Amino acid sequence: MPDQAISDRRMMARALQLAAKGLYSTDPNPRVGCVLVREDRIVGEGWHVRAGEGHAEVNALAQAGEEARGATAYVTLEPCSHTGRTPPCADALIAAGVVRVVAAMQDPNPLVAGRGLERLRAADVQVDCGVLESEAAALNPGFVKRMQTGLPYVRLKLAMSMDGRTAMASGESQWITGPEARADVQRLRARSSAVVSGADAVLLDDSALTVRSAQLGLPEAEAKAATERQPLRVLVDGSLRVPLSGRLFQQDGPVLVACRLDELPEADYRAAGAELIALADAGGQQVDLDALLQLLASRGCNEVLVESGAKLTGAFLRAGLVDELVVYMAPRLLGSLARPLLELPFDSMAQAMQLDVTDMRAVGRDWRITARPVFPF
Amino acid sequence: MPDQAISDRRMMARALQLAAKGLYSTDPNPRVGCVLVREDRIVGEGWHVRAGEGHAEVNALAQAGEEARGATAYVTLEPCSHTGRTPPCADALIAAGVVRVVAAMQDPNPLVAGRGLERLRAADVQVDCGVLESEAAALNPGFVKRMQTGLPYVRLKLAMSMDGRTAMASGESQWITGPEARADVQRLRARSSAVVSGADAVLLDDSALTVRSAQLGLPEAEAKAATERQPLRVLVDGSLRVPLSGRLFQQDGPVLVACRLDELPEADYRAAGAELIALADAGGQQVDLDALLQLLASRGCNEVLVESGAKLTGAFLRAGLVDELVVYMAPRLLGSLARPLLELPFDSMAQAMQLDVTDMRAVGRDWRITARPVFPF
Repeated sequence: MPDQAISDRRMMARALQLAAKGLYSTDPNPRVGCVLVREDRIVGEGWHVRAGEGHAEVNALAQAGEEARGATAYVTLEPCSHTGRTPPCADALIAAGVVRVVAAMQDPNPLVAGRGLERLRAADVQVDCGVLESEAAALNPGFVKRMQTGLPYVRLKLAMSMDGRTAMASGESQWITGPEARADVQRLRARSSAVVSGADAVLLDDSALTVRSAQLGLPEAEAKAATERQPLRVLVDGSLRVPLSGRLFQQDGPVLVACRLDELPEADYRAAGAELIALADAGGQQVDLDALLQLLASRGCNEVLVESGAKLTGAFLRAGLVDELVVYMAPRLLGSLARPLLELPFDSMAQAMQLDVTDMRAVGRDWRITARPVFPF
Repeated sequence: MPDQAISDRRMMARALQLAAKGLYSTDPNPRVGCVLVREDRIVGEGWHVRAGEGHAEVNALAQAGEEARGATAYVTLEPCSHTGRTPPCADALIAAGVVRVVAAMQDPNPLVAGRGLERLRAADVQVDCGVLESEAAALNPGFVKRMQTGLPYVRLKLAMSMDGRTAMASGESQWITGPEARADVQRLRARSSAVVSGADAVLLDDSALTVRSAQLGLPEAEAKAATERQPLRVLVDGSLRVPLSGRLFQQDGPVLVACRLDELPEADYRAAGAELIALADAGGQQVDLDALLQLLASRGCNEVLVESGAKLTGAFLRAGLVDELVVYMAPRLLGSLARPLLELPFDSMAQAMQLDVTDMRAVGRDWRITARPVFPF
């Protein structure tokens, strides 16, 4: 690999590190990092912290000041060319005298992809794109998927014993996994735009589904930043069985309840700080999960975490709506009478779902398996 | 660590490598390796190949010849002091002029432990014991356990989907795991003294339970050595439901059938090349698994592999007879109607079995989890 290519990858790796600092805070914007380099020296670094505040490029330019003139900018996402809550970053880079821009990837929105780079080229800035592209895309799976498809990236969080069980038949269930795994789940929630659960699960555990800063296992400043914004909590409650007195409604942060009823007690829910919507499927017997995800995407949800019981998680999976499974496996055997991991009523091997395991690691005394469904099943 | 200790550990590590060459062939003897070192130079190496042939020390001495005089011998197990099928190794070391013996561990048989070392000390040989002791014990878990307790080391082999299922409700089951996992199971069989299965599993799959050299995934010479000896195949068949026409009885190698009947058709089984025994438990309704394992140990079985269905594997586990679980997890979901991993009819979380995961690794596209039950449950 030529020296320039090695140097480009090294600088982009640094920009990705910076971008990752926004993991818990940029929502609904993507995580983006920027490094400004002049004569082999980093003269400015920046990352996007939260929506409405400076983009990564602007923050890096502010740090570099006059040293940005003649510099190369490494950005993990194509600089924007439109005026949103802030002016276009492409213009800011041009105005600062940046002579070369290396982008990890184009804007994933097919309607705008390439426009920021074109604008730079038109101003005689040298442009290269595609350095550490898959790494950059992996940092924003939800933003990328939403821009490309109009659906969020859906993670299914599951916790099971080694024999694939979640709770005793009686419902006795708490604390299957250890504190490290539970902290890991808190971090999954914190990076998500929304957390979805079903009525059975919420009734069983009286879940609040909030992110609790003390349980994130992060340094205090990071934990604080991660909890400034609570993910939207979404309750799938077809016939409105979860009472408004439940913990879900007693905690701060937005709540959306999806049901399948015709007459909605919207005022009651509004009084409890929650939004109630009707989203029945064609048969009218279930909440339409696909429509729910489309709604969430239209509201800017990038990553959606589904944390629920076997029924709702199985339904998401059977509907082909799941991008990733995150399974926490506790080193225990709960036995053959205990509750199944997922409600998947298959009769033949041909129906079995194939998975692609992308990561396996110890989390405390438990194991975390990350896998993707392989379509078609 | 002083230089001598480092050097001792390095040489013992080499002796353990040599010992491991006997993994598939020494049964019922332990795997043992020996390195002879004089003036920091290895002058002889040996390992025990198979019962009835030279012990590791004798093989190493043969290679060293006159250079053994004044040498240090590193042996992974205390040299024997008794005349078995071969003369005592302690005497051979003394006669060859070895001046120091470093043993990884004492003979695990409490009735003879230390006698070989005493014999060496009495002949003014310097003796040290305990170098890489746990590594040496791990090489012979079955031999060590049998000598200490009169029971073999029992491994439970299981193959499951990620949701803890082994087969569809209909029984449809073959090929859940990939070829690499199946080769790994072949190697587990090959290192075992006996392979135990139950009538349900053998009837379902018409299992032969043999080691097939082409499926071991080993170099040809090793595969040949590994299949010179077939493990004893043990069928737990309480009421003799498996027909003598089954593949189990049609393959070469010894077969033992344990039932709970009073009147035994011994002659029929003998004609089929199998031994039939009655081993009913106190209630007379089940084969006594504890008695079966004692019988196997009395016949020199060190490592026993249980490969069976949920019922028999669950029974072994519930009886507290299992030392290690080896679980092959396929990246699939078989669904909530599919068969459970183990028949463990627990009602409350307090009955759940705790495990200690000792190893987790990818085997082809599957994952192998090695775990030990934590007693008391």
